[in-house]
Amino acid sequence: MNQPIQQKILDDILLKRDITDVSKATIRQCAAIANELEDASGESFVRLEIGVPGIAACQVGVDAQKHALDSGIASIYPNIGGLPELKTNASRFLKAFLDVDINAECIVPTVGSMQACFNLLLECSQLTPEKDTILYINPGFPPHVRQSKVLNIKYEQFDIYNYRDERLRDKLEEYFSKGNIAALVYSNPNNPTWVCLTEHELQIVGECATKYDVVVLEDLAYMCMDFRSDKSRPFEPPFQPTVAHYTDNYVLMSSGSKMFSYAGERIAIVAFSPKLFSREYPELRKRYGMGRMGDNYIFTYLYVASSGTSHSAQYALAAMMKAAVDGEYNFVKVVRTYGERAKVSKAIFERHGFHVVYDKDIDRNIGDGFFYTIGYGEMSNHELLSDLLRCGVAAITLNNTGSNQPGIRVCVSQLTTRMHMKMLDDRLALFEQLQATKSQPSVNT
Amino acid sequence: MNQPIQQKILDDILLKRDITDVSKATIRQCAAIANELEDASGESFVRLEIGVPGIAACQVGVDAQKHALDSGIASIYPNIGGLPELKTNASRFLKAFLDVDINAECIVPTVGSMQACFNLLLECSQLTPEKDTILYINPGFPPHVRQSKVLNIKYEQFDIYNYRDERLRDKLEEYFSKGNIAALVYSNPNNPTWVCLTEHELQIVGECATKYDVVVLEDLAYMCMDFRSDKSRPFEPPFQPTVAHYTDNYVLMSSGSKMFSYAGERIAIVAFSPKLFSREYPELRKRYGMGRMGDNYIFTYLYVASSGTSHSAQYALAAMMKAAVDGEYNFVKVVRTYGERAKVSKAIFERHGFHVVYDKDIDRNIGDGFFYTIGYGEMSNHELLSDLLRCGVAAITLNNTGSNQPGIRVCVSQLTTRMHMKMLDDRLALFEQLQATKSQPSVNT
Repeated sequence: MNQPIQQKILDDILLKRDITDVSKATIRQCAAIANELEDASGESFVRLEIGVPGIAACQVGVDAQKHALDSGIASIYPNIGGLPELKTNASRFLKAFLDVDINAECIVPTVGSMQACFNLLLECSQLTPEKDTILYINPGFPPHVRQSKVLNIKYEQFDIYNYRDERLRDKLEEYFSKGNIAALVYSNPNNPTWVCLTEHELQIVGECATKYDVVVLEDLAYMCMDFRSDKSRPFEPPFQPTVAHYTDNYVLMSSGSKMFSYAGERIAIVAFSPKLFSREYPELRKRYGMGRMGDNYIFTYLYVASSGTSHSAQYALAAMMKAAVDGEYNFVKVVRTYGERAKVSKAIFERHGFHVVYDKDIDRNIGDGFFYTIGYGEMSNHELLSDLLRCGVAAITLNNTGSNQPGIRVCVSQLTTRMHMKMLDDRLALFEQLQATKSQPSVNT
Repeated sequence: MNQPIQQKILDDILLKRDITDVSKATIRQCAAIANELEDASGESFVRLEIGVPGIAACQVGVDAQKHALDSGIASIYPNIGGLPELKTNASRFLKAFLDVDINAECIVPTVGSMQACFNLLLECSQLTPEKDTILYINPGFPPHVRQSKVLNIKYEQFDIYNYRDERLRDKLEEYFSKGNIAALVYSNPNNPTWVCLTEHELQIVGECATKYDVVVLEDLAYMCMDFRSDKSRPFEPPFQPTVAHYTDNYVLMSSGSKMFSYAGERIAIVAFSPKLFSREYPELRKRYGMGRMGDNYIFTYLYVASSGTSHSAQYALAAMMKAAVDGEYNFVKVVRTYGERAKVSKAIFERHGFHVVYDKDIDRNIGDGFFYTIGYGEMSNHELLSDLLRCGVAAITLNNTGSNQPGIRVCVSQLTTRMHMKMLDDRLALFEQLQATKSQPSVNT
């Protein structure tokens, strides 16, 4: 690619796709725009927009799933509460890597963490009449906010950028004290910024959740992937930090998509705090004839959402979690490659004048993992993404993730080879040239 | 089993399970009660409550799914709009067995028809502000109504028992003319009654839907299973009757669960009328930045519900549909065994004094298929189910399905052997004895 794609070509694609502002394009729309620009330019793009695994699926899972299919389970409805083998191994898995005690009963498989969160939001919004609002810690995974919008659930959100450490307590108190917050949602490590809440911050979250009776929905899609310390040894510290150590008002979401590169089969687990699982909510009883949060999650919400989760994929996840717990499959070691890709690509961005936007966990540099955030001076989201697309780089903007900072999210999963790094380097050089051209007075106005 | 289980044992189980009225127990609850009664009595139950396939999964699907897993798709997010191979074969399948023309673009895989309907209800309720209510033709599949309840969507329902033929038009007009009905939901052949709407009735539904701009959601879970005529030959009449021949306002749901005995893998397709798929709804555009019904179904609703459907199961369904269309796998012939089970078991019920509740399609006897409905004189739902459970027979009551008639739904899928028929015969004899005892004056009051 020797010169940027013409602005008009990009504009035409946006017009055709009915997208008025490229900075508001969703992940899937960005992917589609990039596909069209690839066709139009004849050049492959550097794909930083979508978090596909970028590693082969864990073979332990593939083997177990095929074995399950051979055993005839394709004809049998899965138990909506989950395959006992999966529930038991997930319980051991959470003990091994989070050091939390959650019995098998409280663990339920879902069609990815996406389905998990969708139904948790719905249930949390129906627990207590006056608690009708979801609070999101941003930046976050855009569909999580979209879920509330689709479901007509009220929501609030704030950008964590200026609210780290004790300031987080003030901010949570500000929202929680109003009495209308049903649940708090965040991911840790964070998508898109790779911010990792510290133990102290998680303690703050837990304390506030207990004080104001708010349910914490903690998305652990990138569990153990803060590679600044080695969390790969089952049953040994350091463990993945989690709010589960600081409150009983938690629900954890743990997806097989990234940990085991099993995104295609849409399989995850939800783990309820045992107290929350068996907690009676009069409003649920009135509405559905059952009162317990866990029973309703399974028999009210998941039942009507999809009648459970792929039977064979449950066998796959059970086997993968078992292998991880038994020390036979080191998933952390396998995914550590994402950290290496982040380190190399981040340096390339910085060499071309970009900077990391969310750069610190209070006093430590952010870790290298699946995602990071990149800005270019004060350049707006719109201009930054437009110019990157014109130079053959696809990403999503930070405003899409609820951030107030200008910049893009970089996902390293598709930077699988040196060739991709070289391409990134070349494209960012082209981007720099484009900026230089734009700052010159035009010779032909 | 020589005598009925004591009433107190049943009552204790209901108390423990927090079920105040056994006639209101859901399918899954009935199954759980039966499991406990089996444990308590040491006797196997005749299981008529749940529609598990009861036939081995179609091997074509199992092979294709395993092959897909071997090819590495477990790590790759499925396209939310669907695997092209599935979309194309589903389009051919609908042409072959329904004689409708729906291009591949308008066909989308879902996590079972359960997810299909859930998201269709949600979308339909958001299409037009004044159309905020779902109308159900009952009896129906209980979770379909529960979906509206969970989603806070208003709904109305009526029992078709007294509204066959031209009276159906009057009834639909009565509801539709109010202007608040967004969508109409029914299954055909019907779960739980095996009522099959006639071509004329489907024409009435279609005409009313067009006249009042109502979306028809037609659940074809039991496609081609009205065995009164042989619908097994692809591209040859007779075809499965469908409303798609009488209106453009339709969406079809076609599940792999029963047709291919693939319930475990949670895979179905939704097929939009091409006109509806590309129809622009200003309300959707305002809310989500996209206006077309089909785009929103995929990128707004299914995206946040589960980010698509098991990648490998899509390959399975694609292969099974292809085999059916190519005449290599006669799914109708395989499932015809359900009709045989219905014929035999229905006769057993009738021999013991029971009657078929929904017994006619206007002037023809109801067909023998996956379900039928059974009453015992004027006996109430509550008493009928209690006494059947005490005699080792599990089922769900008709009031659970929106019927105004007393009775139970019988699902024949688990009556797989002669032994089961013999057990049914014995248990119904026991039921008759129990009734005889109850009608005698008690000697010990």
